[in-house]
Amino acid sequence: GAAGSQDMLRPRLVLFGDSITEQSFRPGGWGAALANTYSRKADVVVRGYGGYNSRWALFLIQRIFPLVGLPPVATTIFFGANDAALPGRTSQRQHVPVEEYRQNLKTIVNHLKDCSKSMVILLITPPPIDEDGRERYARSLYGEDARRLPERTNEMVGVYAGQCIELAKEMDVHCIDIWSKMQAAEGWQKLYLSDGLHLTPEGNALVHKEVVQALRGAGLKPEDMPHDFPHHSKIDGIHPEKAFQ
Amino acid sequence: GAAGSQDMLRPRLVLFGDSITEQSFRPGGWGAALANTYSRKADVVVRGYGGYNSRWALFLIQRIFPLVGLPPVATTIFFGANDAALPGRTSQRQHVPVEEYRQNLKTIVNHLKDCSKSMVILLITPPPIDEDGRERYARSLYGEDARRLPERTNEMVGVYAGQCIELAKEMDVHCIDIWSKMQAAEGWQKLYLSDGLHLTPEGNALVHKEVVQALRGAGLKPEDMPHDFPHHSKIDGIHPEKAFQ
Repeated sequence: GAAGSQDMLRPRLVLFGDSITEQSFRPGGWGAALANTYSRKADVVVRGYGGYNSRWALFLIQRIFPLVGLPPVATTIFFGANDAALPGRTSQRQHVPVEEYRQNLKTIVNHLKDCSKSMVILLITPPPIDEDGRERYARSLYGEDARRLPERTNEMVGVYAGQCIELAKEMDVHCIDIWSKMQAAEGWQKLYLSDGLHLTPEGNALVHKEVVQALRGAGLKPEDMPHDFPHHSKIDGIHPEKAFQ
Repeated sequence: GAAGSQDMLRPRLVLFGDSITEQSFRPGGWGAALANTYSRKADVVVRGYGGYNSRWALFLIQRIFPLVGLPPVATTIFFGANDAALPGRTSQRQHVPVEEYRQNLKTIVNHLKDCSKSMVILLITPPPIDEDGRERYARSLYGEDARRLPERTNEMVGVYAGQCIELAKEMDVHCIDIWSKMQAAEGWQKLYLSDGLHLTPEGNALVHKEVVQALRGAGLKPEDMPHDFPHHSKIDGIHPEKAFQ
């Protein structure tokens, strides 16, 4: 009903991705920080699915992004870290060939464009891999039984990142090349990555900064967006009703 | 439409309150932590309005909690810190007499009960006030021009907290007496409060712990709630579609 959708008028930013998105509300997480940046301007909705690749993501898009109803004003699409798991290694079940990864991203972007012509679509490349960090992590879990060969390499993830960037250009949507941005910093391996793959608070802060910059560049500046109900300083102590008319 | 409401099936936990709720997605915040606790089980929706008292909150409830549409499964109501600002002091514009505070909470609770018979309604008392912390904060802003008399006292906030607790009993809804819980700890003044009123990360952690405990006690245990889409380990590498039927 009309009254039921009133509250829905607060714009939604949807974060769609794998564990790096799912974990974005942990302490220092980029999702929580984004919710704070858009406080009283937009709702940040987490749709992160740990372990998922872009192939499995396709099973979700009709449900998460129905073609009817009010679409999000912006969506981040952050897959690839699992797609890039190498075939023949311990995480091969999650592997998706790079051509298919690109095609899957294209299917997701096309679906979002079908949902809304004005939605800001923001692709994010997978972050770089710290192979030493992954090995230490595997040994911490499995000791001497840990896999001898890396399940992901930074080089291969870079191939996926490159396809993500190219696709964004082809489809004229926004893109954050977090794979390159992270590697621009000295000691990025331990600075930004906690287990060689997931983000430290510093890594989360970088993703947050880049996402905010991209959203602002796409026209979603919090200071220009309508405030959800009047600021308390605008409310008259004697006649508060005036502020709410 | 039916398809449009599919995604709405993920339960919502709404946090309704003043600045202590609005700021709950800052680093270490209790709202962000709650979103993480209910990851893939429920969406946490912030409806915090800095500076608001329970009187001004009444102007929002029809919009935030429409009587039609899918209601939240749980709502926290966290007002009183501004109502308890003393008349005749610097924050008097926000003051609401304690009898009216109780009546306003009752109006909010009755409205939520009208929205849904099964909604978990959780009142939270205002936190205690560290008068020394408030004075230091005022001096940091205004120097020697700072107010000489406290704009809030812990004793008076305690009166509001008591009315909140009594009302919760009268209306048979859940209540967290955070005013008392915080004061049970040695050095609560600086441990839990950053400026004598708002929460430190430790204060946020305590609120998070208490809210989770209350929600669990009311039947909202994350481990028993449906998982949003299958865990990745349940997805067959060759026939992923089976997991999504």
